[in-house]
Amino acid sequence: MKGIRRLAQHLDISIGTVSRALNGKPDVNEETRKRVLQAAADLGYVPNQSGRSLRQGTTNIIGFMMQTGTEITGQGDIFFMSVFDGVQAVFARHKLDLVALLCSSQEDPNDYLRRVVARGFADGLILSATQRDDPRIEFLAERNIPFVTLGRSLTDAGQPWLDLDFEGMAQASIDRLVARGHRRIAVTRPHDDVNLGYIFVDRCRRALAEHGLPLEEDLIFRSTPNEAGGYQIARDLLALDEPPTAIVLINETIAIGFYQALSEAGMKPGRDIAVIGRYSPHAHFLSPPLTCFRLSLRDLGIALAETLLSAMPAFKDHYPDAPANMVWPMELVEGESDAFLIPQR
Amino acid sequence: MKGIRRLAQHLDISIGTVSRALNGKPDVNEETRKRVLQAAADLGYVPNQSGRSLRQGTTNIIGFMMQTGTEITGQGDIFFMSVFDGVQAVFARHKLDLVALLCSSQEDPNDYLRRVVARGFADGLILSATQRDDPRIEFLAERNIPFVTLGRSLTDAGQPWLDLDFEGMAQASIDRLVARGHRRIAVTRPHDDVNLGYIFVDRCRRALAEHGLPLEEDLIFRSTPNEAGGYQIARDLLALDEPPTAIVLINETIAIGFYQALSEAGMKPGRDIAVIGRYSPHAHFLSPPLTCFRLSLRDLGIALAETLLSAMPAFKDHYPDAPANMVWPMELVEGESDAFLIPQR
Repeated sequence: MKGIRRLAQHLDISIGTVSRALNGKPDVNEETRKRVLQAAADLGYVPNQSGRSLRQGTTNIIGFMMQTGTEITGQGDIFFMSVFDGVQAVFARHKLDLVALLCSSQEDPNDYLRRVVARGFADGLILSATQRDDPRIEFLAERNIPFVTLGRSLTDAGQPWLDLDFEGMAQASIDRLVARGHRRIAVTRPHDDVNLGYIFVDRCRRALAEHGLPLEEDLIFRSTPNEAGGYQIARDLLALDEPPTAIVLINETIAIGFYQALSEAGMKPGRDIAVIGRYSPHAHFLSPPLTCFRLSLRDLGIALAETLLSAMPAFKDHYPDAPANMVWPMELVEGESDAFLIPQR
Repeated sequence: MKGIRRLAQHLDISIGTVSRALNGKPDVNEETRKRVLQAAADLGYVPNQSGRSLRQGTTNIIGFMMQTGTEITGQGDIFFMSVFDGVQAVFARHKLDLVALLCSSQEDPNDYLRRVVARGFADGLILSATQRDDPRIEFLAERNIPFVTLGRSLTDAGQPWLDLDFEGMAQASIDRLVARGHRRIAVTRPHDDVNLGYIFVDRCRRALAEHGLPLEEDLIFRSTPNEAGGYQIARDLLALDEPPTAIVLINETIAIGFYQALSEAGMKPGRDIAVIGRYSPHAHFLSPPLTCFRLSLRDLGIALAETLLSAMPAFKDHYPDAPANMVWPMELVEGESDAFLIPQR
């Protein structure tokens, strides 16, 4: 009532009249209504949404749940900021605000989400870092809370999701490397149980099998998704008795550390080992340029927002064609990091 | 009431009894209280904070307001994620949640903040990107909302703030470059009206004056704080009739684009021009390694959180020694990018 009380004092009329004027009730004369609206604009009055939320069930806030933590920092940062940019472009049409719900890696994401929901300050949610089995999905579905996930999961409550085409990246990378003569091809996956690791490695294995090749267990490298993780992968790889001749890197920033560790060992991507990775703003500053898979993160953010809104009664009529489940394509950008060929026998 | 109703149904006792048990009222027998608390734990019950907030004025949420937008993405991302890590370490002690309030560069930050406050979902706020004159500071101070700013401003409402030691960086950089014989030294500043640009450039000018040197207007480069901005600075600099022999870069990621544009012109930092910048996780992957100023972002986050809590009645007794206003030191990391010497006449 703070805002409305100030407004009433300023105008020297009753709070009830101000409230009726603001809410468009008919029993206020036109002159008064104009004065109230003008004063509301002048004083920057905004209705108290915390109270409004309890009555109307709307806060006009959408939460984007993402993980934070030392071992993750560096990876998703630029990814998410660019996605937010697209999400906000859509939300701005409807005066919805986006807040990032930062779940520390020290905390159980399920407990965190439960708290977020209990606090009831968001009208809808976007979940990222979907796990292989993800109880958050059932939790939200049971409560009829509108949400969309960035990433698939084995947990299926019929929820809308968008995900990157990790299968396409796996298949194209393996085909490309095999065609260049590689037989010992390494792959990477995140250190944790995030679902994309399973999708990616499974498809790499299948693609290799199509060429009659195995995916050897010691050629699957787990790492934190940042520079340090990439550095460690290269060190571990070089320590093998028989190192692979090619590698596919699943995260954006691991390429930077990977290059560094190779360089310290006197090796160069494209000359001594073939490397395929993911695009990041830094990718084309690497030497040699990274052959990588790219997508428009802003467009992905736009689609994510539209898909969420299409699941919210108040907005769904605006988005009849929003994708409900979609694998987002990635495009191959040719660099020089996979120029290394193995002579065919 | 949803959560408590489910709990009551599950236990088959009245909502009133459940509520009294949860709130530690004396008129509930011990057996029942234990059953209720056990069930609350099993079902993951959390009190509805939206209702609680209106009654008690606390949401246990702290908002960190930051800017987003295409022209900014790339710069602050890794910076903020690392700061969040420290902030969350402190908040976890008090079961406070951190949310990032993402203000699009398309929007007026003052309007945005007004909305955030009206919605009343945060108990306290951390503001970043402080402007030279920043109305947000007076707005929050007038309303007695606990807040701390990351960055100083000419607007002074006695608020607590922490800021990086841009003066120290300016002074040390200029002294170092002058000692190496440089006379034409360029500096950079952000494209917008953020206060740190003024602080930095003013101190560079003063430090140069101490050596009897001017800071020429055409050697002050404004840019967006990302790779593209750094690229443009190098292009503009190389187009000058008489390019500078040294430059100090104020943002983290502009070094990457700056190196790239130099490289395209056949030039190399440390050999053809002296470069001093700011540390980023990518800095030591640059070739040659960047001479740069570094700080622990996690420690900065910890201090920021403690300073905020020391301004909040519920927590201030825990933080009697939190800094109220502090300039955070940065440490020089020697690289090779400023190895270029100008022979003394």
